[in-house]
Amino acid sequence: MKLHGLEISGNTYKVKLLLHLLDIKYHFIEIDIEHKQHKSDEFLQLNPRGEFPVLEDESIVIWDSQAILIYIARKYGLKHNENHWYPDNATELAYITQWLTVANDEIFHTLGKARSILKFGYDGDLVLYQKQGKKVLKWLNRHLNNNQWLATDKPSIADIACYPYVALCEEGDISLNNYPAIHNWFERIQQLKGYTNMPGL
Amino acid sequence: MKLHGLEISGNTYKVKLLLHLLDIKYHFIEIDIEHKQHKSDEFLQLNPRGEFPVLEDESIVIWDSQAILIYIARKYGLKHNENHWYPDNATELAYITQWLTVANDEIFHTLGKARSILKFGYDGDLVLYQKQGKKVLKWLNRHLNNNQWLATDKPSIADIACYPYVALCEEGDISLNNYPAIHNWFERIQQLKGYTNMPGL
Repeated sequence: MKLHGLEISGNTYKVKLLLHLLDIKYHFIEIDIEHKQHKSDEFLQLNPRGEFPVLEDESIVIWDSQAILIYIARKYGLKHNENHWYPDNATELAYITQWLTVANDEIFHTLGKARSILKFGYDGDLVLYQKQGKKVLKWLNRHLNNNQWLATDKPSIADIACYPYVALCEEGDISLNNYPAIHNWFERIQQLKGYTNMPGL
Repeated sequence: MKLHGLEISGNTYKVKLLLHLLDIKYHFIEIDIEHKQHKSDEFLQLNPRGEFPVLEDESIVIWDSQAILIYIARKYGLKHNENHWYPDNATELAYITQWLTVANDEIFHTLGKARSILKFGYDGDLVLYQKQGKKVLKWLNRHLNNNQWLATDKPSIADIACYPYVALCEEGDISLNNYPAIHNWFERIQQLKGYTNMPGL
């Protein structure tokens, strides 16, 4: 299995984290970001969106981090008798999907974008993202006051999808003080067997 | 089953369409948008994001259109022996998820937003959305040249999630001329048993 991505990308890390938690061997291929390798013709053959991560599992190519998480959880989670990552039950699937959407929308488009501006020099309204990001953190903290995991009573890909850009948000100059339930959730994630870190965490 | 939404909302329509295709009875509750009912305390109890659609199925409450599509497809699609809407296979699930992401990202954030500006007076860079939207249409048309359905060889919730804001894009003053494969896909969707329309289509 090959994973194309960037070491310092939160979206790449989501996939790495699940691979490590499921103890799956893979070959990591770092994108040559300076030469915009992800916009090259060769890479566009793998992913017409020109984005990473991309997973190659023999002849199967999957782009989009959430699609990759679902693929890995469903294909290999079951083999390990760990179907809590993406279970079968309609209600649990729906709750997980809600948080996958929050990861892409509220979390990435506030906390993630503030980080992109300060860390990578991207354009955008930093003050707005920081303000909106704080609202997201308050909401998450409130939700995690009453829930050990975001979507179900076990860790799922919802936790993996939401974790990186929340945990990295101080790189966007958004304080993580005063959110004890979020910190407790971080600890639960970090204590999972096979947990691996990324730069900045 | 109760569906809270707005008749002219593409995201609400996605859910309606699947309910009709699966011949599921439901009670539709139109949001009082003039009085911002979706931001009321009562509604925030159902959906802390203050958005619609929201599905209530007895005691289960699901927000986010994609989460609702997965819930309905998995809970009721199987009962009707129609598991092609959201199948079990890891690879098919991943392909469907890719297009669910495209529906939320590329499609909604270009074609959908251009429509929001012209139809509802929202703020935003119309010219940029129209330009980006045309790229999305070209990509979709190319993909549909070689595929009957977006994600698998049968209709899935990927088609349902992507269809509305593509089909409505002329309300954002983006022409649908010169995309014959997209029009053929529209026709295939519209010929599905139980298909229902929305205002503007």
